[in-house]
Amino acid sequence: MKLIRWGNPGQEKTGVIINEVKYDTSAFGEDYNEAFFENDGLNRLASFLKANEGKLQPVGDSERLGSPVARPSKILCIGLNYAKHAAEAKMAIPAEPILFMKSTTSLSGPFDPIIIPKDSVKSDWEVELAFVIGKKASYVSEEDALDYVAGYVLHNDVSEREWQLERGGTWDKGKGCDTFAPLGPFLATSDEIADPHKLRLWLKLNGKILQDSNTDDLIFNVPFLISYVSKFMTLLPGDVVSTGTPAGVGMGFNPSIFLKSGDVVELGIDGLGVSRQEVKAYGES
Amino acid sequence: MKLIRWGNPGQEKTGVIINEVKYDTSAFGEDYNEAFFENDGLNRLASFLKANEGKLQPVGDSERLGSPVARPSKILCIGLNYAKHAAEAKMAIPAEPILFMKSTTSLSGPFDPIIIPKDSVKSDWEVELAFVIGKKASYVSEEDALDYVAGYVLHNDVSEREWQLERGGTWDKGKGCDTFAPLGPFLATSDEIADPHKLRLWLKLNGKILQDSNTDDLIFNVPFLISYVSKFMTLLPGDVVSTGTPAGVGMGFNPSIFLKSGDVVELGIDGLGVSRQEVKAYGES
Repeated sequence: MKLIRWGNPGQEKTGVIINEVKYDTSAFGEDYNEAFFENDGLNRLASFLKANEGKLQPVGDSERLGSPVARPSKILCIGLNYAKHAAEAKMAIPAEPILFMKSTTSLSGPFDPIIIPKDSVKSDWEVELAFVIGKKASYVSEEDALDYVAGYVLHNDVSEREWQLERGGTWDKGKGCDTFAPLGPFLATSDEIADPHKLRLWLKLNGKILQDSNTDDLIFNVPFLISYVSKFMTLLPGDVVSTGTPAGVGMGFNPSIFLKSGDVVELGIDGLGVSRQEVKAYGES
Repeated sequence: MKLIRWGNPGQEKTGVIINEVKYDTSAFGEDYNEAFFENDGLNRLASFLKANEGKLQPVGDSERLGSPVARPSKILCIGLNYAKHAAEAKMAIPAEPILFMKSTTSLSGPFDPIIIPKDSVKSDWEVELAFVIGKKASYVSEEDALDYVAGYVLHNDVSEREWQLERGGTWDKGKGCDTFAPLGPFLATSDEIADPHKLRLWLKLNGKILQDSNTDDLIFNVPFLISYVSKFMTLLPGDVVSTGTPAGVGMGFNPSIFLKSGDVVELGIDGLGVSRQEVKAYGES
């Protein structure tokens, strides 16, 4: 299944995409949140779709898409998980995964604008494969890890480089700004993705392709990451884990390229669709 | 008011403390969560208490206390915010606040055990003054900042030092383990705390006092922190911000002292009560 959430920010309704058509599943009566994933929601939604075949109403093309999952308990990210990106960031390939967190207030829709915060001068892009946790995960083995994945989703891990790297402390300061986590367009359930480690992922800035790689280049793969992260903290159903970005981010160019008002970012991953964000300055309408 | 939440983990009911007696406020019908703080919950609760004076049922002394606020969207922490603690951690006094995040799955009750995670060898304590956000805060001025505080709460920012400092990446890896954020015993609303910058805070390990300081030693005070943090991300009602710990943590001793099964940690802050955690190894009953 391909799950979407649509409507005004904070008031999203649920839906699914079937044969490229968006349908309203509000009648299912649950948001795609922790309780949904925890209580076998994906199987129950599949039954609902079967019972309502041909009866669902399409979602209008003008409707906004929100994040395909409701606000999770956490958005965990892996840093420097592609060798060439570590090189362009002038950092060593990590011996074990680097973890950091994005504030969940950074979550936004796949076509919502990226708002450059006040006084920001180094806002940057990062196309990433993210996965959504399907059941509570604590001390999970690599062998069992994929059983804990509800599905996969496209993520732009927008990052303010000055705030991340030059303002003291951890990376979190430059990762959690409002609108810095466009997620979607849809959550593809695990059965839709034959191999999460064979997916092309790319990003264009103003039509020019700047990131173009494949998840077969991940240093630490999805099962390893789930097992690893679950030793440090419990992952809850609906939590989002983003696996890192390949080379081609703005800070890697010489001179660096950073986002400015009017820029358009487009990104995509095989099987997970395409998202598009216009860049605006804070306060700009 | 002094707000509490009590009952089994994940099923907490609400309450208040009046003249040192705990009362059940379940009949108020709302948890102390984002919606409560956002929708003028504190004033409505005050009216409810007035209307129900003398009618509330006491909470049994054997009842467990949970975190006095429901799971927030985020737990943000300030690092190295007392000069002597920066010195003992062998780090420079920061030019501006250090931010990091604790996973909200680390939240636990004030008398719940601290569980040392598997393979952890450097679990440490940190008594801290935390505050809870009362309304959505984005680009808040220092002058207005205290209007955004719902109240104050005692926090033990339990930290795995090896994972925080020696395992690559950000501090988040050693800060968000399950049970690493005992919060409470109660949330004191702002009106109960005449000056948040004149509060003694202390921590004992097995009866011996190891941290003993005062919030008048904070490098960055509460209004500055609110204004500062709100430039990087929006704070939501119910969010918890912890202001940093004074000197006297385990890694500061020579040789270092770290938590082990059977240890007892007690901590307190003027006006915010006392909490107590027994330390257990993972899997120990």
